Amino acid sequence: MTTSNEFQRRSAELNDLLCVINVLTWDARTQMPGGGSGSRAQQLATLSALARERLLDPAFEESARQTGQDDGQDDLQQRAASQALEAVTAMRRVPEALTRELALLKSEAQDAWAAAKQNNDFAAFEPALTRMVDLTRQLSAALGDAASGEEGHPYDALLNTYEPGMTVKTLLPLFERLRAHHVPLLRAIQAQPAPRSDFLTRFYPPDAQKTFSLAAAERFGYDTGRGRLDQSAHPFEISFTREDVRITTRFQEHFLPGALFGTLHETGHALYEQGVDPELSRTVLTSDLLGLYAVGGASYGTHESQSRLWENRIGRSAAYWKLHYPELQSTFPEGLSDVSLEEFLRAVNKVTPSLIRVEADELTYDLHIMLRVELEMRLIAGELEVKDLPAAWNARIREDLGLEVPDDARGVLQDIHWSSGMFGSFPTYTIGNVMASQFYNAAGKAIPELEAQLERGEYAPLREWLTANIYTHGRTYTPHELLVRTTGEGLNPQPYLDYLTGKYSGLYGLEHAEQTQEHKENV
Amino acid sequence: MTTSNEFQRRSAELNDLLCVINVLTWDARTQMPGGGSGSRAQQLATLSALARERLLDPAFEESARQTGQDDGQDDLQQRAASQALEAVTAMRRVPEALTRELALLKSEAQDAWAAAKQNNDFAAFEPALTRMVDLTRQLSAALGDAASGEEGHPYDALLNTYEPGMTVKTLLPLFERLRAHHVPLLRAIQAQPAPRSDFLTRFYPPDAQKTFSLAAAERFGYDTGRGRLDQSAHPFEISFTREDVRITTRFQEHFLPGALFGTLHETGHALYEQGVDPELSRTVLTSDLLGLYAVGGASYGTHESQSRLWENRIGRSAAYWKLHYPELQSTFPEGLSDVSLEEFLRAVNKVTPSLIRVEADELTYDLHIMLRVELEMRLIAGELEVKDLPAAWNARIREDLGLEVPDDARGVLQDIHWSSGMFGSFPTYTIGNVMASQFYNAAGKAIPELEAQLERGEYAPLREWLTANIYTHGRTYTPHELLVRTTGEGLNPQPYLDYLTGKYSGLYGLEHAEQTQEHKENV
Repeated sequence: MTTSNEFQRRSAELNDLLCVINVLTWDARTQMPGGGSGSRAQQLATLSALARERLLDPAFEESARQTGQDDGQDDLQQRAASQALEAVTAMRRVPEALTRELALLKSEAQDAWAAAKQNNDFAAFEPALTRMVDLTRQLSAALGDAASGEEGHPYDALLNTYEPGMTVKTLLPLFERLRAHHVPLLRAIQAQPAPRSDFLTRFYPPDAQKTFSLAAAERFGYDTGRGRLDQSAHPFEISFTREDVRITTRFQEHFLPGALFGTLHETGHALYEQGVDPELSRTVLTSDLLGLYAVGGASYGTHESQSRLWENRIGRSAAYWKLHYPELQSTFPEGLSDVSLEEFLRAVNKVTPSLIRVEADELTYDLHIMLRVELEMRLIAGELEVKDLPAAWNARIREDLGLEVPDDARGVLQDIHWSSGMFGSFPTYTIGNVMASQFYNAAGKAIPELEAQLERGEYAPLREWLTANIYTHGRTYTPHELLVRTTGEGLNPQPYLDYLTGKYSGLYGLEHAEQTQEHKENV
Repeated sequence: MTTSNEFQRRSAELNDLLCVINVLTWDARTQMPGGGSGSRAQQLATLSALARERLLDPAFEESARQTGQDDGQDDLQQRAASQALEAVTAMRRVPEALTRELALLKSEAQDAWAAAKQNNDFAAFEPALTRMVDLTRQLSAALGDAASGEEGHPYDALLNTYEPGMTVKTLLPLFERLRAHHVPLLRAIQAQPAPRSDFLTRFYPPDAQKTFSLAAAERFGYDTGRGRLDQSAHPFEISFTREDVRITTRFQEHFLPGALFGTLHETGHALYEQGVDPELSRTVLTSDLLGLYAVGGASYGTHESQSRLWENRIGRSAAYWKLHYPELQSTFPEGLSDVSLEEFLRAVNKVTPSLIRVEADELTYDLHIMLRVELEMRLIAGELEVKDLPAAWNARIREDLGLEVPDDARGVLQDIHWSSGMFGSFPTYTIGNVMASQFYNAAGKAIPELEAQLERGEYAPLREWLTANIYTHGRTYTPHELLVRTTGEGLNPQPYLDYLTGKYSGLYGLEHAEQTQEHKENV
């Protein structure tokens, strides 16, 4: 066996383990009886420990090194080898005891969070969160020197595990620019009469929601021969190689948009995973080796760009509903027969400041994200104490959205992320929004007929362009490389700002806001 | 860490891996989209190889040896250690290349078998089956010397992997005795008018079947907080520790008994797994280390004794239906309103020679098993060639059941077992039948009120007795030890023969057959 084969064999075994971890995770969230949670946690811990052991096996490192030094290897092999070596180096910096402590704390903290949210009692969560922040700061310190050098922010190392190459130095100016755009636009929208949306909370039979949602997913090109749609409390997408990519959604009897757009969102993620080059299956290039998670997307942000593109850019567009609203209406005659296309379109694109991130519209969503990122950066930098978190949260909600937080359950306790130790993941939602518009514009340049195709419901050309330019590459390129290859430049919020301004100006009859043209340079 | 802790830690890791293999198997059979089968096979192969590696790790053997030699360890630890050492010894005897060849051939042979069955073309399966017999003979030879010494049959080593301690020398006289009982009883039954059973193939709405079946499972004590009922092509039960024990059945629109009794059968298996002592979770004593399968039952036969006991002894009894038939009738008014309790009871206990094992009644079922065991013993001994198998099969069906096999799909191709390399597993179905009556009689002795309780639908006392005497012990004891502890003797067919004679004499109005009293000694 040549060294390269040895590297491939070990990479395949590692990827298999990560895929199995994903299967267990999917099962736990969609099928498992309640009694199984304890033993499932042990099974997951055993698999994670095994994957970590295999990753840190000196023979794996050696096989990667030899592959990297072998000029006969193709570019993909070289990239796989170098990513493997980076992951090994990073994983080595994290003491095994810290990994174990974090894993143990994670389930404890999630339980504490769930109970605290249920009882609206932040104090009950505070000790676990304090410990989580402490351990995460240790993690950041362990990873940190490697990630960003001396001039970096302690948050960089965490951010990098979700969005390779992204730093606070890049992120903060981006956020400033978004805020400078979003807040005035929000004020302008709030000055207009609010569209009606009462009909969205009528009774919508869940079975019909599922039928319509699945058909919509398939229309975009989701291959149910390599996937399936289930129900779960929190919608998600997960893959066990490109041949088995599953999505979930939630069918709420009295809230139609949840399943409708949730499914399109997860479909975007799924199209990414199903579109990865088969050659990359069972390799490092479909493995998040640090996160011990099998995934084909380049980063969390890149992945989110595709869920947002298909959900928002396509799924909330006038062209989409002009074509598909009659079918939706005939599926739900009791809910929608008295609602015009125009009313429906304005309702599903309605902008309203709200307390809950996952219910937020496209515009205020970014404000929710920035709030979280600012607070978690200060926690990780040691500039904010956990006990002061609720007050800081509530102050920002007041400032940005003009709302009073009535209780912590609808405030600082609403998200699971911090209890899971996912510090550094929030920025990727907004990065995804920004990337989505860049990718969409690049597709538009490459396919002059794009708008006309979408108006006819022809989604294949767009999907195929995205597949050829993004999906097929798996994790071969960094997000920045992918952007440059595809759009000719790095992360640039201008297309996103133009999209939002144009969209809401049309929907709310605003004059074109000036501030979107202020900045043209990349951030 | 003491050595015992080291043994426990390694055993827990191994059991976790086996539980995960079971999760992947369950998912593949109930949830997985078709496209996922290739990558799932690779994931399973990787996990099996890992489990094998951990089992054969010299450090595991050493930890087991030290535990076995440590007088401070309790009896359970000693037994776990000795079972681990036995498994290591046996697994070591099988060359890794043979294990790999068998695993590869298994999926190839299953595909060939499925296609051959579909097209009724035994010749298309013959090459794969010939190779499977050849590799299985090699497996038997590798395991064999250890298993049964010089005077043994080559089939013994295979039989032992499913039914520890069972040999051809014990099995054949048992079979002779069953045959001597069953065939005359069958002839006597055939001389009587056949009960009507046409109503069983009326339309029975699948949703109502599921509701009734699940309620019936819960009535026996199946804990759905630690389990769930799904649909699959071939019903089965599988566990991922006692805390997550899942069953499946098949809801056929035009065949009520399939789901009805299939669910009770799998419930019997599930009660066994859910009843294992929590202390045995994640140990060798809930691990089939040779089969690389997590299971709490002592053997295939012991497990089958519980599925048969709950399905047949309880679920097909007059007492059961006297109590529950009104509910069944009101669940399916269109199918059963014109059918009396008596008619229903006779229909679901109707004896008819048939071509298909899985559709056979309690009496002819054993004849199907004996036919298969005789043929597979001759294959493994090299006394029968694969090309002569269909003729041998058809001859035995003619002789035992008086039927002509119209095609191989309804003959030699009907079962998946041989294509899966499961030579040696068929006897355990009949062994289970025999054991079921022994256990049931022992329960009756211990619980004088048993019959009265069952007539009142009180299943808890029986389940609790079975739990305390059988289920709780997991794989601690061999089947023989369990029988002796529980019934005071080894395998003895007399209670089973008495049960069948009594049952069918009543249902068919026969005079009590004499031959059941001919033999009293154990076999």
